[in-house]
Amino acid sequence: MARKHNFYAGPAVLPVSVVKKAQESLFEYGTCGIGIAEMSHRSKEFDAILEGAVAAVKRLYNVSDDYGVAFVQGGASMVMAINALNFVPEGGRAQFVDTGTWARRAIGEVARKASADVVWSGKDVAYAELPELSSLSFDADVSFVHMTSNNTIAGTQFREFPRTEAPLFVDMSSDFFSHPVDMNQFGMVYGGIQKNLGPAGSALVIVRKDLLERIPQGLSEMLDMGVYVKKNSIYNTPAAFTIYMTSLVLDWLEKDIGGLENMDRINKEKAGLLYDCFDASGGFYRATVKNPAHRSLMNVTFRLAQEPLEATLIAEATAAGFIGLKGHRSVGGLRASIYNSCPTESVREFVTFLNDFAKKNG
Amino acid sequence: MARKHNFYAGPAVLPVSVVKKAQESLFEYGTCGIGIAEMSHRSKEFDAILEGAVAAVKRLYNVSDDYGVAFVQGGASMVMAINALNFVPEGGRAQFVDTGTWARRAIGEVARKASADVVWSGKDVAYAELPELSSLSFDADVSFVHMTSNNTIAGTQFREFPRTEAPLFVDMSSDFFSHPVDMNQFGMVYGGIQKNLGPAGSALVIVRKDLLERIPQGLSEMLDMGVYVKKNSIYNTPAAFTIYMTSLVLDWLEKDIGGLENMDRINKEKAGLLYDCFDASGGFYRATVKNPAHRSLMNVTFRLAQEPLEATLIAEATAAGFIGLKGHRSVGGLRASIYNSCPTESVREFVTFLNDFAKKNG
Repeated sequence: MARKHNFYAGPAVLPVSVVKKAQESLFEYGTCGIGIAEMSHRSKEFDAILEGAVAAVKRLYNVSDDYGVAFVQGGASMVMAINALNFVPEGGRAQFVDTGTWARRAIGEVARKASADVVWSGKDVAYAELPELSSLSFDADVSFVHMTSNNTIAGTQFREFPRTEAPLFVDMSSDFFSHPVDMNQFGMVYGGIQKNLGPAGSALVIVRKDLLERIPQGLSEMLDMGVYVKKNSIYNTPAAFTIYMTSLVLDWLEKDIGGLENMDRINKEKAGLLYDCFDASGGFYRATVKNPAHRSLMNVTFRLAQEPLEATLIAEATAAGFIGLKGHRSVGGLRASIYNSCPTESVREFVTFLNDFAKKNG
Repeated sequence: MARKHNFYAGPAVLPVSVVKKAQESLFEYGTCGIGIAEMSHRSKEFDAILEGAVAAVKRLYNVSDDYGVAFVQGGASMVMAINALNFVPEGGRAQFVDTGTWARRAIGEVARKASADVVWSGKDVAYAELPELSSLSFDADVSFVHMTSNNTIAGTQFREFPRTEAPLFVDMSSDFFSHPVDMNQFGMVYGGIQKNLGPAGSALVIVRKDLLERIPQGLSEMLDMGVYVKKNSIYNTPAAFTIYMTSLVLDWLEKDIGGLENMDRINKEKAGLLYDCFDASGGFYRATVKNPAHRSLMNVTFRLAQEPLEATLIAEATAAGFIGLKGHRSVGGLRASIYNSCPTESVREFVTFLNDFAKKNG
């Protein structure tokens, strides 16, 4: 078979070399005689996998020892729930930049117990724009300031972040490890791993350790970020296979790609191919995000001038082996998710398809 | 290579046929052109997997429509945390049978907010005994009564359960789907899936739907069992690969094994081989659980009369391809975990090894 061109928004395409290695390890990990999914999470083999993954995270982002790294089952949504319990006192206050659905989920977690101040919202512009960072102003005395770096549904992306006095928490689910970022500016970054890092089933958290001291007593260990960090993600049985695949993807990022600067260069090239195609289509295609500085390099959302043709395009693309192109059910339209692991070749072939489709229907 | 005989307590051995099918699907699921770990959890393919798994759960245990089925990331530990938040009011009361480490984890979750009454505890007998069911008495007005059906560390197992007026919640992590049980007697059964059902990364919950109405308002959706059930486990991105492997194991249970009665017969045979070996060893081996009615068919815990020989046995067994035999770090000794997927042949060969070892060292 030929693997199709996978543009799903997550769970998403993984590097073929990683998939092949995981296939082997599923039957036997290394030479240990059992499969990776059948192994104690307290075995020396799994210890090495987990330690290796954490070390790779730290190397790739150049994370200082002031930060802890943990895997949390339940994805970014569970981290949002835990953050509200851990870091915002009853009746306290956190501040948010509302850039869409996932930002609103984080807001919702805080709003049930405290004041969730929205400093800026893109709601009135259908989340197709981002604020200028210099226009944002945050208070120093809030529990945290929260942003969503990449907005999977709306197709916008912050590549830089404002200076904040309060700890800055960023949900990086959909652009984690896609370009270099200075981690020292954050209180926490976190993300579900099912877009850029592995299969679904975990979030990865990078958190400034001193913040863990703010967590109140009396919470379940399962809802205490301090426990995840201090117990190295194995207070309870971790999502071991998921962490293993993440370790392979991190290894691929370091060795095959050569780190986040190279990854960024490749991601810019891939996104550029698509946005250039739209911009050159004489209005046949239109990026839903007008301002090039706000456009996501991960989720390229677009519409056709002739909207009824969108269903035709999806059907023909699917038949031609380009799948996962339907926009999120809440907004419609089209979306090509081109995360780290999406090969440049898939994007090139898709652009050819788009150009042919425009010629045929334009 | 030859796969080793895997006696790990969990994550644990999986059926070889399941592992092989998962290997294939990791590269391409069916003929859909992408791997199972790279697929949207809202695709029609994953829908069918999830629905199929839930239907198989219901068929295998003959679950009535009064019950809902859900997958919850974070394993049994997260379910314990959620149960305390969902079903026990602040200052309320639940009752427990304390049969060891995992029972105590469930107790701890309730104890931080309410009265966690221990009706019986095996602490004074190092958890090597169980109470007679007829001796247990529970109150009708508690939020729930909680038991742990199989105690992985102590090697004990309840195969039957007391009648309770309050809803009976049972943690079945380590003997889930190992023998037929009448589900109608329970308010909830739950278990981490990494022993009898799949790789680590989820719990499976079977809960009486009317109990979900007792869940208080104002909780995070991620901590509300009602949301997991009503949203069919996909309020947030589920642990898709883990659920897929579970669906394969359930299929294996139904089609290859032929259901829970057959599974039970096989499990009794496997455990019998080991306990008979100990009982016939003239005291060289000793099951840590004296009463045959209390002995686990899943985790066979044992000691040597000559305790210093235990390390030798583990080393020689490991060299001979029998792995995962070390007792839990909290109790020492030896443990052969022989869950559903552990082949009878592995147990037979291990018994031969044990008999040879006894002959050599007796």
